Amino acid sequence: MAKEKKAPRPKAETPKGFRDYFGPDVAERKAMLDAIARVYHLYGFEALESSAVETVEALGKFLPDVDRPNEGVFAWQEDAEGEKPGDWLALRYDLTAPLARVYAQHRNELPTPYRRFAMGPVWRNEKPGPGRFRQFYQCDADTVGTASVAADAEICMMLADALEAVGIERGDYVIRVNNRKVLNGVLEVAGLPDTEAHHAARGIVLRAIDKLDRLGPEGVRALLGEGRKDESGDYTKGAGLSKAQIEVLLSFATAPTLVQNEITRQIALSEKTRGVQDGRIRAFENKQGEIFEASEIGPEYYPYVFTIQHLRRLVAESEVGTEGVEELVALANLTRANKYGPDRIVIDPSVVRGLGYYTGPVFEAELTFEITDEKGNPRQFGSVAGGGRYDDLVKRFTGQEVPATGISIGVDRLLAALRAKGRSQSDTTGPVVVTVMDRDRMADYQAMASELRQAGIRAEVYLGNPKNFGNQLKYADKRGSPVAIIQGGDEHAKGVVQVKDLILGAKIAETATHEEWKDQPAQFECKREDMVARVHEILSR
Amino acid sequence: MAKEKKAPRPKAETPKGFRDYFGPDVAERKAMLDAIARVYHLYGFEALESSAVETVEALGKFLPDVDRPNEGVFAWQEDAEGEKPGDWLALRYDLTAPLARVYAQHRNELPTPYRRFAMGPVWRNEKPGPGRFRQFYQCDADTVGTASVAADAEICMMLADALEAVGIERGDYVIRVNNRKVLNGVLEVAGLPDTEAHHAARGIVLRAIDKLDRLGPEGVRALLGEGRKDESGDYTKGAGLSKAQIEVLLSFATAPTLVQNEITRQIALSEKTRGVQDGRIRAFENKQGEIFEASEIGPEYYPYVFTIQHLRRLVAESEVGTEGVEELVALANLTRANKYGPDRIVIDPSVVRGLGYYTGPVFEAELTFEITDEKGNPRQFGSVAGGGRYDDLVKRFTGQEVPATGISIGVDRLLAALRAKGRSQSDTTGPVVVTVMDRDRMADYQAMASELRQAGIRAEVYLGNPKNFGNQLKYADKRGSPVAIIQGGDEHAKGVVQVKDLILGAKIAETATHEEWKDQPAQFECKREDMVARVHEILSR
Repeated sequence: MAKEKKAPRPKAETPKGFRDYFGPDVAERKAMLDAIARVYHLYGFEALESSAVETVEALGKFLPDVDRPNEGVFAWQEDAEGEKPGDWLALRYDLTAPLARVYAQHRNELPTPYRRFAMGPVWRNEKPGPGRFRQFYQCDADTVGTASVAADAEICMMLADALEAVGIERGDYVIRVNNRKVLNGVLEVAGLPDTEAHHAARGIVLRAIDKLDRLGPEGVRALLGEGRKDESGDYTKGAGLSKAQIEVLLSFATAPTLVQNEITRQIALSEKTRGVQDGRIRAFENKQGEIFEASEIGPEYYPYVFTIQHLRRLVAESEVGTEGVEELVALANLTRANKYGPDRIVIDPSVVRGLGYYTGPVFEAELTFEITDEKGNPRQFGSVAGGGRYDDLVKRFTGQEVPATGISIGVDRLLAALRAKGRSQSDTTGPVVVTVMDRDRMADYQAMASELRQAGIRAEVYLGNPKNFGNQLKYADKRGSPVAIIQGGDEHAKGVVQVKDLILGAKIAETATHEEWKDQPAQFECKREDMVARVHEILSR
Repeated sequence: MAKEKKAPRPKAETPKGFRDYFGPDVAERKAMLDAIARVYHLYGFEALESSAVETVEALGKFLPDVDRPNEGVFAWQEDAEGEKPGDWLALRYDLTAPLARVYAQHRNELPTPYRRFAMGPVWRNEKPGPGRFRQFYQCDADTVGTASVAADAEICMMLADALEAVGIERGDYVIRVNNRKVLNGVLEVAGLPDTEAHHAARGIVLRAIDKLDRLGPEGVRALLGEGRKDESGDYTKGAGLSKAQIEVLLSFATAPTLVQNEITRQIALSEKTRGVQDGRIRAFENKQGEIFEASEIGPEYYPYVFTIQHLRRLVAESEVGTEGVEELVALANLTRANKYGPDRIVIDPSVVRGLGYYTGPVFEAELTFEITDEKGNPRQFGSVAGGGRYDDLVKRFTGQEVPATGISIGVDRLLAALRAKGRSQSDTTGPVVVTVMDRDRMADYQAMASELRQAGIRAEVYLGNPKNFGNQLKYADKRGSPVAIIQGGDEHAKGVVQVKDLILGAKIAETATHEEWKDQPAQFECKREDMVARVHEILSR
């Protein structure tokens, strides 16, 4: 008989762009998601776990990142049933598209409005890169079936509570709120309404505004008008807008600066006319040069009040724009009444990016503390969550518009932030390791571990080859064990055990003098029946 | 321009064989898995979350259910990279195959032995049926890298603790233990060693033994010999074994009956020779007819002692069989020494099914309480977990044999058992609903919900259209709310709220007389500032 060729061994590798998560990483993420889930649940949101697999038809082409339409899904075709070709199935790429499908499918049994949260992996069939994976977690909360701005306000307040629940302190985050309708209103006033004819120009304008930080107002002005030559001499064609159009758009894009200047001017005016030098606005000059008493609001609300004033004037001619500004006012009033002041939730017209399918309020949670980037430079941590109102997703299925609003937390980014702040909440202590000196007394060692566990102490028996005792201690080290228990034949005969304090041992080995070494023995003997109590002492130090 | 045809609306449906899990189901499963994870963690096991997607090459063809080799996976091919065809990827079909891949890939960083647990969905591309889904949860714990039977004993004890932790009471479950080597030994003694030549006959034998319950010893005897004609007259060809071979196999298959008969006989002998009638064995007759003093063991261990005796004799001629029996003895000694007696962990040679890739001890956890089946008949609940030792999985990758042992809990079956026993541990109470009587005072209503939440009470504001108050109460009903809060203009002016006790209300509506109705008002007025305290009273009733 011919010898069969042996098949080559399979490679032990995750597919490209996928990864495994081990003990501490899993525990850390779980602790964070559990804390967030408790907040969501307290707000009346219900958990939903939809299937990971959807029909491609139901998923549709609603990838949130419209800048990369080629970003794909993992898809396959079912076997044919007789003549009928099999359905195409795919792994979900986010948690919002499945929510729309679930709500359309079960809307008769679900309460309206339907508040739900969902946490779980999603999959993207894109080119993997450093730190970019093809499977990652999302954590979403959405309210479906109400157009009330109270739902948007609730989402923002709940997000603030969730961030604090996981360990981000007040002052270390801010939730910025804008409204898609304001932006539409500004574009409308600038003569670029949302029609096919202006699609390209609107795109150029949004990209230009997005570059304000880098190019400054003059650079943006050039891009909106004739075009711009950069330092290298390369020429970028402009949007070719008129001077009046450009003024409207720049006045929107530079709103924060204009607002700050106006606040400074009004404070100076107050000091001049009222003679009080406390940085508060007491008098107020309107655009016609008339001077009024200012109503008594706290300085923390000045940016809000002047921003709204500025936006109201800017989009006065646009119905949708005015609607957007009034929605911002309503949202701000609700959050302020619930004591979520501008230290936590701020109106910020510069939130432009990633509006995607949003139709009303949009939110972005930013962490404001500094971290050190890869090059050693300090920078703000940045965005960890985003969301907003979207009214068209369910309509795809039912034909009826169903208003919805929600938020998605970037699980990996928030985890990274908690690590950067040393706030990760999981217990990563290893187990107490009961070493094995005498293979025949395994039952005794297991009984020790069992007793420790009954006292709530994580414990295990060493189950490798016990011959080399050094290997057992190396194992305990690898496990991050705080304590090792040792009982050889002599100790057994005397009814005692050796308790080895591995944390203290490591510390002494690093830093202690000879005297300290003698005073603080990292290993001691105790009666067998005192073992649990003595280990407990070490762990509660 | 020609009008574009509108695409038909997508169907809002999960793919066939998939389902969604809503609030209470998700919470219930999470509570159960959290309780199990706490036990596993306490035993020193580390969480592992491997990627849901594996290369088909790494997964291999190791589906545990060997009776259905066509059972498939969901697979797809990656895009080609230049000349190189793309890899085939697939969703994992269990948690064991990925563990083997993870261990092979990371063995240099992982401790040895490596104790890990994993919980998560797996996917099977099989024909969906009633109650059979193509995505379901598994919950596994395995120890990789030790051949010690102490690891198997630990798994069994940990499984017992896990079952009790989720609410299965002692006495309501039993963990049955057998050893694959014993079965191999019996087959060897019966002249059917594990070689290619005997493959078919061994299959017939295993299937015949498995039918003992239904066919009785004589039916199995016929199947092992000439063959068997059933009641309908159909003839099944037999294995054609000799009388001696058949005796060995039947003696194994009917071991529980033989053992019980022997126990009865020895008790009767004790009573005759020692004159004590307490159902205990005081004297002992061996196979040669000699009578000895029996050593003092509790009656609960008689089945164990006589089973081992029986098996030892049966496989005395087989090295592997004897090894298997001694492993059973070692495991039983370890569990007994740790006070996991035969009320929890029993040696049971009838555990034959589903041995699959197992190479040593095998375990099966069975729930012993009765439930009522679909036809209204009482039946034992049955198996909720299974596992055992397998030594070949990692070898596929590395060429080195790596011993491993583990257990897999059937998440859905265990959940069903907890529901049947009313032991499901999650809080499924709906939120307090703050109704909206005056749309302009939304901030007030949100402040009420916020105060309730700050006291740890789940609460939400009604965010649907508030016009029809009846709809608000229907909503509260659908949400399973215990309490509704009502504050109209009059109440607001007076500084009070109405508290509506929905649970008491429902009870009164069902059962109360008119007097009780008056005495126990399901709705009362209280001061606005007392609202939280009064709601708290209702909830802690």
